[in-house]
Amino acid sequence: MNQPTLLTSQIRDVVFGKDVKVVQPVNLYDCSIGDNCFIGPFVEIQSNAIVGNRTRVQSHSFICDGVTIGEDCFIGHGVMFINDVFSGGGPAGDRNAWKKTIIGNGVSIGSNATLLPVSICDGVVIGAGAVVTKDIQEKGIYAGNPARLLRRL
Amino acid sequence: MNQPTLLTSQIRDVVFGKDVKVVQPVNLYDCSIGDNCFIGPFVEIQSNAIVGNRTRVQSHSFICDGVTIGEDCFIGHGVMFINDVFSGGGPAGDRNAWKKTIIGNGVSIGSNATLLPVSICDGVVIGAGAVVTKDIQEKGIYAGNPARLLRRL
Amino acid sequence: MNQPTLLTSQIRDVVFGKDVKVVQPVNLYDCSIGDNCFIGPFVEIQSNAIVGNRTRVQSHSFICDGVTIGEDCFIGHGVMFINDVFSGGGPAGDRNAWKKTIIGNGVSIGSNATLLPVSICDGVVIGAGAVVTKDIQEKGIYAGNPARLLRRL
Repeated sequence: MNQPTLLTSQIRDVVFGKDVKVVQPVNLYDCSIGDNCFIGPFVEIQSNAIVGNRTRVQSHSFICDGVTIGEDCFIGHGVMFINDVFSGGGPAGDRNAWKKTIIGNGVSIGSNATLLPVSICDGVVIGAGAVVTKDIQEKGIYAGNPARLLRRL
Repeated sequence: MNQPTLLTSQIRDVVFGKDVKVVQPVNLYDCSIGDNCFIGPFVEIQSNAIVGNRTRVQSHSFICDGVTIGEDCFIGHGVMFINDVFSGGGPAGDRNAWKKTIIGNGVSIGSNATLLPVSICDGVVIGAGAVVTKDIQEKGIYAGNPARLLRRL
Repeated sequence: MNQPTLLTSQIRDVVFGKDVKVVQPVNLYDCSIGDNCFIGPFVEIQSNAIVGNRTRVQSHSFICDGVTIGEDCFIGHGVMFINDVFSGGGPAGDRNAWKKTIIGNGVSIGSNATLLPVSICDGVVIGAGAVVTKDIQEKGIYAGNPARLLRRL
């Protein structure tokens, strides 16, 4: 009988700001989390991700390598970020092929939303269950699969 | 180096009915769970949520404050409920602005479905991956983003 | 006060190949996981599921009873498989009514994708957030809800 190598979710090499709250279990490593942030349970945040001050990351969300989230953002439950768009027909063997995501300040992302590698400007609202496939440069509410502007803010 | 405040997922101040099974880890607090319910792993259920008798909540689901689920329901995996629709362009600062969800009896909700604050009548089926944005008052199968009636039952 | 029966996520009766890595917590039981696989945190894999050699299953995914995944596949984060389509208007009481899913080799499935019981041929890419409702027999990139062919590969 083969036995697997068992690793355990952990908090490793994370740079925390002041007054951060984390609800375990989580898997956070090599990332930066600003002042007064909240990180809910069952969250994974990977290397090189940056979460700005006063941003809340709710349960079940996944923030991948290459994502920068601004200040005063709200990341709902079950939100998934993506850095590899399988442009060669499958996973990029080389992490240099991973793409970056930049989320501005005061952005609110609804639960179960999915974000391809994009830039989103300040103050945008992404509806629950939306799939964001393109950059968003105008403040407004976006929803659907693929996400489209519902109304300006 | 700042250290975060570490909290841990738990079962706190939950009113359980008879013969409930819970698969840990879960984060359940200040909520009510009826007789003969099943709660799978990696589930979060918040304050003031009510889960009716014989309802099953599968892994990875999130039930928020203000949700009432009837009896004999099936909540699939990765189902997310929502109480704050960011109507002011971001999270409501005041929980009095949160909206309620009422799920009837015998409702089945497919995996990865997302439910905005709505009322759903008895016996409805919500397809996997659906995003429910409006009340449902007719028994049937609903799917898509936004969810639409596929066929009556 | 009633007390629930508390079970705990575990690794039970799993047949592992060589050099598998698993990041706990996970809930894996009665399933088969091939050589050189990776299983991320917060993953559930149920009885009778088969995961082929060198396939990676990322965090938050759920693989149900009746799913067979080929070799060299990438299962993203928050991917949900389904075996019960509620064809009688709710959960099948009888597991013989559950349907099977067959995923070929070299298939890449984007994060937050949802898969109804289907067959998918080798080399397919499923976009993030897609809801796959039909068999896929042609190599290509499929996305949307319901998933449609975006382009051939």
